[in-house]
Amino acid sequence: MSPGFARTPEDFDPAVRAHRVADVTVTVVADGVPLADAEVVLAQRNHRFLFGNIGFEQIPLANGKLDGEARERAEQIADRWLALFNAATLPFYWGQFERERGAPATEPLLATARWFKERGCVVKGHPLAWHTLAPAWLRDLPVEEVAREQVARIRRDAAAFAGVLDAWDVINEVVIMPVFDKEPNGLTRLCREIGRIPLVRMVFDAAREADPSATLLLNDFDMSTAYECLIEGVLEAGIKIDALGLQSHMHQGYWGEERTLETIDRFARYGLPLHFTETTLVSGHIMPPEIVDLNDYQIPSWPSTPEGEQRQAEEVVRHYTTLLSHPAVVSATYWGLTDGGWLGAPGGFLRADGTPKPSYDALYALVKGDWWTAPTPLRTDAAGRLRFAGFLGAYELGAGGQTAAFDVSFPGETAVTVSI
Amino acid sequence: MSPGFARTPEDFDPAVRAHRVADVTVTVVADGVPLADAEVVLAQRNHRFLFGNIGFEQIPLANGKLDGEARERAEQIADRWLALFNAATLPFYWGQFERERGAPATEPLLATARWFKERGCVVKGHPLAWHTLAPAWLRDLPVEEVAREQVARIRRDAAAFAGVLDAWDVINEVVIMPVFDKEPNGLTRLCREIGRIPLVRMVFDAAREADPSATLLLNDFDMSTAYECLIEGVLEAGIKIDALGLQSHMHQGYWGEERTLETIDRFARYGLPLHFTETTLVSGHIMPPEIVDLNDYQIPSWPSTPEGEQRQAEEVVRHYTTLLSHPAVVSATYWGLTDGGWLGAPGGFLRADGTPKPSYDALYALVKGDWWTAPTPLRTDAAGRLRFAGFLGAYELGAGGQTAAFDVSFPGETAVTVSI
Repeated sequence: MSPGFARTPEDFDPAVRAHRVADVTVTVVADGVPLADAEVVLAQRNHRFLFGNIGFEQIPLANGKLDGEARERAEQIADRWLALFNAATLPFYWGQFERERGAPATEPLLATARWFKERGCVVKGHPLAWHTLAPAWLRDLPVEEVAREQVARIRRDAAAFAGVLDAWDVINEVVIMPVFDKEPNGLTRLCREIGRIPLVRMVFDAAREADPSATLLLNDFDMSTAYECLIEGVLEAGIKIDALGLQSHMHQGYWGEERTLETIDRFARYGLPLHFTETTLVSGHIMPPEIVDLNDYQIPSWPSTPEGEQRQAEEVVRHYTTLLSHPAVVSATYWGLTDGGWLGAPGGFLRADGTPKPSYDALYALVKGDWWTAPTPLRTDAAGRLRFAGFLGAYELGAGGQTAAFDVSFPGETAVTVSI
Repeated sequence: MSPGFARTPEDFDPAVRAHRVADVTVTVVADGVPLADAEVVLAQRNHRFLFGNIGFEQIPLANGKLDGEARERAEQIADRWLALFNAATLPFYWGQFERERGAPATEPLLATARWFKERGCVVKGHPLAWHTLAPAWLRDLPVEEVAREQVARIRRDAAAFAGVLDAWDVINEVVIMPVFDKEPNGLTRLCREIGRIPLVRMVFDAAREADPSATLLLNDFDMSTAYECLIEGVLEAGIKIDALGLQSHMHQGYWGEERTLETIDRFARYGLPLHFTETTLVSGHIMPPEIVDLNDYQIPSWPSTPEGEQRQAEEVVRHYTTLLSHPAVVSATYWGLTDGGWLGAPGGFLRADGTPKPSYDALYALVKGDWWTAPTPLRTDAAGRLRFAGFLGAYELGAGGQTAAFDVSFPGETAVTVSI
C-alpha cells in the first residue's frame, strides 16, 4: 500500500468496474484546513446497489415473539441476513394481510419494517395488487366493488407505511392477470373487465397519492415480449413507473450470462431502473423444464446436495456479477435466506439447519470482500488528499478519534471534500 | 317442401346457427301489390362471412400473362378459387413490391385487385409494414429515414389502391418486431427506437389518411398474452383499429376447438371484429413441435398423403365450424389454394397437380352446401309472403322473368320486403 492510495479501479472485475466503481480523490479537511500527512482510516458502510432478500422470516423476531432457542436461532439467522443484505422485501399478500375484511394486520409489518430500517436497510412492500393470494372475501364481489376495495386497500396501506417503506411492488404479474385461470379471484375479473392499463393506472394513482415519495414498481415474472408490450402500453398511457421489477426464479436452471444480459437489454431500453425482484437458484436438483407454473411442482422432499451447493455458489457469483455488469440494474433481491421456503426448494443461502452453504460464503466474498472496502489505514498527502477506488455507497473516514461520513454515488473519477 | 317455406333454422349446425343464420320472412311485392300465391325462385349469391384465400397465384392470369396450357391450368385453378372463396388477400411485401427504391410494382396488383373485385370478392392488401421482406435498400438508412420511407410508402400505396382494395393488414407482427433477430432490417431498428405503439400510430395514421374507407387491421402470429398487451396499449393510446388479424398457421398441428375458442374469447374481449387472416392445415406430416420459427423448417419434399388429406379435411370442417360458432369472427382467410406454396407445405386445398383434395370438397360442402341456399323454387302465400332460413349474405329472388336482390345481414328473426 502506497501512502494516500487504497485499491485502484483495476482491482475490480472489469465487467463490473465501469458502472459500480468510483475512483475517488478525497480531500480531508479539519477545522477548515487540509489535514496533511495524517493517518486516517477509510471504511465502507453500505452499498449503493441494493443487495436484497425477503425479510419474511424476521417478522416474529422483529415483533419480539420469540424466546429461548427459537429466538437464538432467529437472531443467528438475522445476523447472517444483515451481514450480507441491505434491502428487505416484506409480505403484503392481501389475503393474508387482511384475511378478515376490515382487519388489516398492519402492526407486525410496521414493526418489522422499522426493525430493518433501524438496521440500515431499504424496505419494500410486496405486493399491493395481485390475483394470487387475494382475499377470499373479494372473490364474489361485483367488479366495481373489487376495484373500490383494491384502491381503498392501497390508499390505506401505502399511507400507513409512508416514511417507513421506501418502495412498493404496486402490482404483480399483470401480464397473466386477466387470463389467470388457476383459481377464481376478484383481481382477474377486474383486470379482464377494465383492461390491464386502466388497472395499472388505478393502482399506481392510488399508491402515488398515498405515498408520493415511495419508489413504485411494476413487477412481473413474464420476461417475454408480453411484458415489453405491457410496459410500452403503460408508459405510452402516461403512467409514471419508477422502476421495473423483473422476477428471476431459476428453479428450472440458471439463465446464464447471455440470456440474462439479453433480458436486461430488452427491458433497459425503457430508461427505467431495473430491479431483479425475486431471484432463486437452487442447490438441489433442477425442476423439470416441462413445468409451466412453478407452483405445480410439489414434491415431498427437495434436498440440498453437495454438488448442487457447489453449482449454486458458482451460479450466484455469475448471476450477481452479470447483474452488476449492466448499469440499468440497481437492485437484486434474492428470494429467501434459509431453505424450506417457497415450494420447499433448496433455494436459500443457508441450509434448513441454518448453516451457510457455499453460496452464502461466495456472495459474502463479493459483497463484503471483492466489492467492499474494509477499514483501511491510509495516509493523506501534503495537500490533505488521499485516493481510493471503491464501490458506490456510503463511506466513513476516521482520523484522530473523529469520524465523518460521505457518499460515493457515481462511477468514474470523482472528488470529494470531507470535513472531519 | 311446404309452400312458402324453405329450410328452417334447425336445418343448420346449432353451434353456428345463432350467429350466422337468419329466419327470414320475405314479402314479395310486384307493382306495389303483394305477389300472392306465386312461384318464385330464391337463391343465395354471396356469404356475408368472408371466406378468404390468398390470390397470389392469380396475378399472372389477372394480368393476361399466360397462354396455352399454363393459361388453361390457371383458369381451372381460378375457377376452383372463385367457386369457394369471396375474399382475396394480395401480396404487398415491400421488398418485392418496391425492389428498386422509387419503382413500385403497382400496376400488376391493381389489375389483380380489379380482377377479384369484378368477380365479387372483397380484396385486402398484406402488409403495409413488416420487418420481414422489407426492402434491402431500407436496411442501412438512418432510423428517421426508415420512418419517412415507411410513411411515404403507405401513403402512396393506400392512395393508389383506394376504392379498389377494401382492407389492409397495415402492420404485421409488431409483437416480435423490435426484438426480431433473424436478419438486420430497418423496421426492427425503427420499432426498437421509437417503440411499438408510436410505430403503430404512425402507420395507421398514414393508412387512414390515404384511404379513410378501408378496413385497417393489426395482424400478428403471436396469440399469447403479448398480443393482448400490445392491443390494449394501442387501444389505450387511442389508435383506431378496425379489426384484429389473428394468424393461425397450423403446420405443427390443428389447434382443436378448445384452444381455438379460448383464443377467440381472449381477443374478442376488445370488441373488435376478428379476422383469421392466415390459416394453414397440412395434409402431410406435421411439422415437429420443437421448431419455433416455422421458416426454419426447410425440407426437400413435404408430400401430401392420403391419411393426411383425410385428417386435413376433417380439421378444415372442425376449424371453420368453430370459427363460425363465435360471433366475433367475421373472416377466415386460408393461406394458399394449391400445394407448393410457403415452406413447400402440403397446406393447400388442391394438390400440386391441381386436383382437389378431400378438404376442398369438405369445405365446399359447407360453404356452398350446408351453409348455402342453392336456387330453390318456392311459393308465396296469400299475403305474398315466403319464409326461409339462410346464412347471412346476399340473395336473389326471381319471379316471372324478373329478379330482385336483397341482403340478409343479421341473425335471428327478420322481415324484408322485396319489390320485383
